[in-house]
Order: sequence, then structure tokens, then C-alpha cells
Amino acid sequence: MRQKTGMIEVATERQGLVEITGAVERWVRESAIREGLLTLFCRHTSASLVIQENAAPAVRRDMEAYFARIAPEDPAAYEHDDEGPDDMPAHLRAALTGVQLAIPLIEGRLALGTWQGIYLFEHRRRPHRRSIALHLIGE
Amino acid sequence: MRQKTGMIEVATERQGLVEITGAVERWVRESAIREGLLTLFCRHTSASLVIQENAAPAVRRDMEAYFARIAPEDPAAYEHDDEGPDDMPAHLRAALTGVQLAIPLIEGRLALGTWQGIYLFEHRRRPHRRSIALHLIGE
Amino acid sequence: MRQKTGMIEVATERQGLVEITGAVERWVRESAIREGLLTLFCRHTSASLVIQENAAPAVRRDMEAYFARIAPEDPAAYEHDDEGPDDMPAHLRAALTGVQLAIPLIEGRLALGTWQGIYLFEHRRRPHRRSIALHLIGE
Repeated sequence: MRQKTGMIEVATERQGLVEITGAVERWVRESAIREGLLTLFCRHTSASLVIQENAAPAVRRDMEAYFARIAPEDPAAYEHDDEGPDDMPAHLRAALTGVQLAIPLIEGRLALGTWQGIYLFEHRRRPHRRSIALHLIGE
Repeated sequence: MRQKTGMIEVATERQGLVEITGAVERWVRESAIREGLLTLFCRHTSASLVIQENAAPAVRRDMEAYFARIAPEDPAAYEHDDEGPDDMPAHLRAALTGVQLAIPLIEGRLALGTWQGIYLFEHRRRPHRRSIALHLIGE
Repeated sequence: MRQKTGMIEVATERQGLVEITGAVERWVRESAIREGLLTLFCRHTSASLVIQENAAPAVRRDMEAYFARIAPEDPAAYEHDDEGPDDMPAHLRAALTGVQLAIPLIEGRLALGTWQGIYLFEHRRRPHRRSIALHLIGE
């Protein structure tokens, strides 16, 4: 059994979903591990990781609009606003969607379904550099 | 250290929670691994995995009703409706609950609490065949 | 490759976030594993695990208030109330935030970001003893 750890950096420009499936698959391929478990961990409290449909762009727009509605930028709703009105809703959206994913690797391929992509979900309005820690174990 | 990968197929008939604890435990038992980590990954964007109470059926009914309320089937709310009014809410409910679980295996048993069961959460109205990838590592 | 399993017990006094980063880091350090993967699993259906900001206390208060709003203690909203009005909302909040986390261990440190802490999120009003199963694999 072998393992590999590492980091992927993602530059975000605005709120929304950024697909990272390709970058993650490249990192896995370089390991030459073909059977095992990949774990991704987003090292931030205002960005998160989600598996979502990689086909229809409308799904991504609807998802961004939905999280803007259920955890709205409403200054009256929150005590914490150190970094502006998008600060606290960003923490809430990250808590609702989660910062960690684990995906089995089977016969040299991540076990993603046909329509699944891996996305970083940026919850802040301004550009950020986001860091995702990776761990892969297997053989 | 050893590992095992595989798939479990689950036939769903309608929206709602389907308990899969027994099938998962059988798959783990066949491996003869007694100490390790089990990971489950639902290969769909309109079904998800949750740990929930396996005792009172009312908990499942309340949970199904709750997710129907916070991510409602409201055609006016979404741009995406390629597969009908239950399509986009299904993606949202999957994003809120998550498609992946990891459970330690300790002394031959999954470390589930007394009242915890593993559930596939079907978010589409029509019957589906759902595929869950599994990974187990340990010894 | 080596692994370690174990349990951490957390006494909670009321609803809200309880930081457990220190206890988890101590458990990892005792293993002398320096590169690997840590998994935490909360063995309850009315408490959960979240990664959140460990700096501003207002973030924790806002988060507690938010989950009280989106999954409210409203007896009229739920069928299940075997253990009182905070029972069903507790299950919902646990499903929304999740009971499991996995964090890579890199060069002897959990790959947490600067502002990230690990929290047990207690969703019941009364004091409870909560049990978290841990699994660490690596070398």
C-alpha cells in the first residue's frame, strides 16, 4: 500500500462553482495508484466542495441562486460582518455544503458517475486563492 | 494492510429514504477486514447518502417533508427543468445532504451509534437504479 | 502503513458548537503517524461535525442562530416529537451539516487552514455525552 499527499491551488474570480475535476484527475494519474481512496479537503471556511452535474450550466446557476436565497446577504440577519455582508453567509453556505469529499478509485478511475463533476464552491464576492489538500492511498 | 472496492446497486421506487445498512454490513463482512475505514460514494447528482435514525419511522417522514419544503418543486424558482419539476430540487437536496460517507470499522463492526442507520436518499419521483461505490481499507 | 482507531467523548451542556480541535490533535500526535488520513465520525443523529472559523465568536453565534431558523423548533411542523420540540429539528440540523469529516495529515500536521477549527455541533437543549469514533491511517 502506498500514499500520496499534496495541494491544489484554485484561483476564484467571483461567487460560484468552479469545476476542478480535470486538475484532480491529473494529480491522481501522476501517482500511478490505480485502486484506492482519494480525499479532498478545502482549507477555508468561506469556500466548500460539492459534487454536482457537469452537463447543464443552468444547474450551476440555479444552485448558486438557491444558496444565495437560503443563506442570504442580509446585514440585519447576522452579528458577524468583519469582512462585509458576504462574510457570514459564506460561512453558512460552506457549513451546508461541506469542505471535504472522499472518492473511491477503481481500476484507475475515480468512481464518479457519468454526470458528476467535482466543484469548488466559492462563497465570497472578491477573487481568492483557495487551497485544497489531497490525500490518496492505495496501490 | 488490505483494501477492497466494489459497488452496491439500490432500486428506488419513489422519493425518500431507503435503508442500506444491512447490504453495506454484508459487503464489509465478506472482506474479513476487522479494523479499518469504509467509504461510500453515491454516483448520482439527484440522490444522496445520509446517516439517520433507524428507529422511529416518523423521523424519516419528517425528513422527507422538510427537504421538500426547503428545496421545493417550484418551476418558477429554477431555470433548469430538463427532466421535470423534481429535477433541480433533487440536485439541491443532494448538495445539502452530500453524496459521500466514511465510517470507521472497529473490532469487526462499523462504528455506527445505536440509533444510526445508513440511508440512500432518493430525490427523484420516478423509480431509479442507484449505484454506490464502496472502498474498504484495513486489516 | 499503520492505522489507529479510537473514541473521543465530548460532554455538551447546551445547543451549540464545541471546539474539539485540541483533543483531536492530541489523539493524532500520540499515534506518531506523520503522513496520512484522519477520519472522524459522530455516532449520533442529533449532533454533527463541522469545520468552522475558530477566530470570531460571533461566527459561532450566527451559525447557531441560523440553523435554529432554517430547521426551527416548531411542534406544528413535525410529526416526530418523542423527546420534545428540539428532537426533530436536531435530526434535520445533523443531516444538513453531516456527521463525518476526513482530514489529510501532512508533515505531522492536520491540513486545517489557518482559520479552521473542528467542532461538535450539539443540536439538543439538554446536556449529553457524545461519542466520536476516530480512524487514522498512514505512516
